[in-house]
Amino acid sequence: MIPANPDRFLADLHHLRTFGASGVDKGVVRPAFSDADIAARRWLAARMEEAGLTPHFDPVGNLFGIAGERSLLMGSHSDSQPEGGWLDGALGVIAALEVARASREVGGPPISVVSFQDEEGRFGVTTGSAIWSGNLDLAKADTLTDHAGVPFAEARARMADLAGDFVDPAQFTGFIEMHIEQGPWLDTEGDKIGVVSDIVGIRDMRVTFGGQQNHAGTTPMHLRRDAFQAMSAFSSAINDRFRNVVTPATVWTIGHVTLHPNASSIVPGRATFSMQWRDGDTDRLARMEEIIRSTAQEIAEARGMKLSYGPMLGLEPVVMDAGLRGALELGAASVAPGKWRKMPSGALHDATNVGALMPVAMLFVPSINGISHDFAEDTAEADLVAGLEVLARAAV
Amino acid sequence: MIPANPDRFLADLHHLRTFGASGVDKGVVRPAFSDADIAARRWLAARMEEAGLTPHFDPVGNLFGIAGERSLLMGSHSDSQPEGGWLDGALGVIAALEVARASREVGGPPISVVSFQDEEGRFGVTTGSAIWSGNLDLAKADTLTDHAGVPFAEARARMADLAGDFVDPAQFTGFIEMHIEQGPWLDTEGDKIGVVSDIVGIRDMRVTFGGQQNHAGTTPMHLRRDAFQAMSAFSSAINDRFRNVVTPATVWTIGHVTLHPNASSIVPGRATFSMQWRDGDTDRLARMEEIIRSTAQEIAEARGMKLSYGPMLGLEPVVMDAGLRGALELGAASVAPGKWRKMPSGALHDATNVGALMPVAMLFVPSINGISHDFAEDTAEADLVAGLEVLARAAV
Repeated sequence: MIPANPDRFLADLHHLRTFGASGVDKGVVRPAFSDADIAARRWLAARMEEAGLTPHFDPVGNLFGIAGERSLLMGSHSDSQPEGGWLDGALGVIAALEVARASREVGGPPISVVSFQDEEGRFGVTTGSAIWSGNLDLAKADTLTDHAGVPFAEARARMADLAGDFVDPAQFTGFIEMHIEQGPWLDTEGDKIGVVSDIVGIRDMRVTFGGQQNHAGTTPMHLRRDAFQAMSAFSSAINDRFRNVVTPATVWTIGHVTLHPNASSIVPGRATFSMQWRDGDTDRLARMEEIIRSTAQEIAEARGMKLSYGPMLGLEPVVMDAGLRGALELGAASVAPGKWRKMPSGALHDATNVGALMPVAMLFVPSINGISHDFAEDTAEADLVAGLEVLARAAV
Repeated sequence: MIPANPDRFLADLHHLRTFGASGVDKGVVRPAFSDADIAARRWLAARMEEAGLTPHFDPVGNLFGIAGERSLLMGSHSDSQPEGGWLDGALGVIAALEVARASREVGGPPISVVSFQDEEGRFGVTTGSAIWSGNLDLAKADTLTDHAGVPFAEARARMADLAGDFVDPAQFTGFIEMHIEQGPWLDTEGDKIGVVSDIVGIRDMRVTFGGQQNHAGTTPMHLRRDAFQAMSAFSSAINDRFRNVVTPATVWTIGHVTLHPNASSIVPGRATFSMQWRDGDTDRLARMEEIIRSTAQEIAEARGMKLSYGPMLGLEPVVMDAGLRGALELGAASVAPGKWRKMPSGALHDATNVGALMPVAMLFVPSINGISHDFAEDTAEADLVAGLEVLARAAV
């Protein structure tokens, strides 16, 4: 039994949100490598040291608090979205710190802590853990730029005075990440804890319908090759055709659209849009891809469109380790009997990358109204503490 | 009979395209108040003077060649789109010049010529003729800016050394505008001449569906309020509901779309799009508006969306004058027997504005493949000459 201290945990969690506090609700503005992010990481390193862990920054800003021997790793990330909530990854970092600290105090099992850098993707997607796990080459990462054109190499140079080598992952026996759900399931169902079964896989690609740009007054409807209309028909058709393939947990999104020339008096000659779909099952992802490609082809042929695709981003589903997951389930059953559930993670997390290095598992607490990546993001303190308790029990 | 000279007409037409020649096909880059546009207008003024007309620039760059007595007015505009074709409005200006010149040479009826300024809407829509006709207040026009932020007042100051007063429209008995069709009807049907029955009316407004921005991984499909999906469903529904209301000449277009936040991993929280429709019948335009508003309301209610509208731009249909139109029909029947048709104009033209001042009529020649506002815009020279002939006959 590790006697995690709820008050100390909550005090640290609230202190962390003073770095980059937005002044709106409990929100924070703490994107990777910002002054607030670096200050928060320096403070975290000091708290790790006070807890008897050895703080260590790697070359890309990932901060480890190492228990000094072969250990379980716990944590998440402390950077935020440009307009972020106070919990998001910060919760998992501070919960790991409290469990590691409490365990050390009572001579419990050694537990190391990590705060990965740029999970929120200022420079890509889960950048820090992707580099550490070998999913992203450092030389390639250095060339990635943020929306303002700043290269990753320049951003990470801001922490060069802190940086040591990369940490050897072989010293860790596994990784447990606690996180807010960032979705509505737990809140809607009144559950306190979600034990993650798998992190869903993602497919994401750009689709372009090329039609014929034309005058919106003089081009009769029957002679138009209107790229917006093609995109709209495509969206309706896949919504219909997916019905026999998907589960209630499957999601798909057209979130980005660019019309050309995008003028009210011109029939759109080109529509480029993002097509993203997520599911825990690789076969289902593939069946959906078939439907997407065959439907787009049909629409293009029927409407005289050129059809082209950008490269498809593919991230495979990551199944949680049975042993670690079992420990979380036992913890959940004793902390929140009848008030927890097994569930997939629809969002990517650092655990997706770390899964390439070692066994991983994840634990969710509810997001009020499912809101995250927003200043209004919040979770009841009782639920935060319940999550801490489950984590502490699983660590044993 | 006015003996319009086809060779002189074509020579002038080709000379005009040397001002702002794009070097691609016969295309021109001659937007309103550009150096090329002003040089072209100076050349046109000189050609008018040689033809015995009195050239006169008004304060907004409209160039008149006045026949010195009560006269019929003919012409169009000599400015082009940023990437324009050589004919567009230039054809109507040069054809008018040739007919006026030829008529003067044989002591025929007095004919005045006009090249309106900024028909292509660098600063709005048919700016020069809109100001002349009183449809647009000069003080208000002066505050309009182009895409680069240049105000109309600053642009027209470039021609201040040429400017006289506004021309009194009372001296003109009517206005005939020859123009390329800018659509595919004549070319598709093998006709040489189109006599315009009316210029269609336009309705154009911005529609916004406001849903809930959300994480595209963690938000289940059944809990989404996806603004893109609402827009797509709206488009499908109006396509269906319009079927019992429209004619083959009716058109409607969603040409401009803005999603917010427009990211592939975020369920769109807001979609703003242009809804434009055109028809020659005011009642039909109103029935379409009812369908648009009731369908948008239904979609918004069914999908939990906020619905809002921008201001609706409304331009009423303009019916061509029966007398002038009859003269064009007689000319067409003798120049191109069995090879002409009556047709609406789906595009706006300067004649739309001039119709507020005097009787107006319009004449179309074919656009090859219906292409215009493009360097590739073209018309067979035989068809250009046929149009000139019809204009000359109608002028008598």
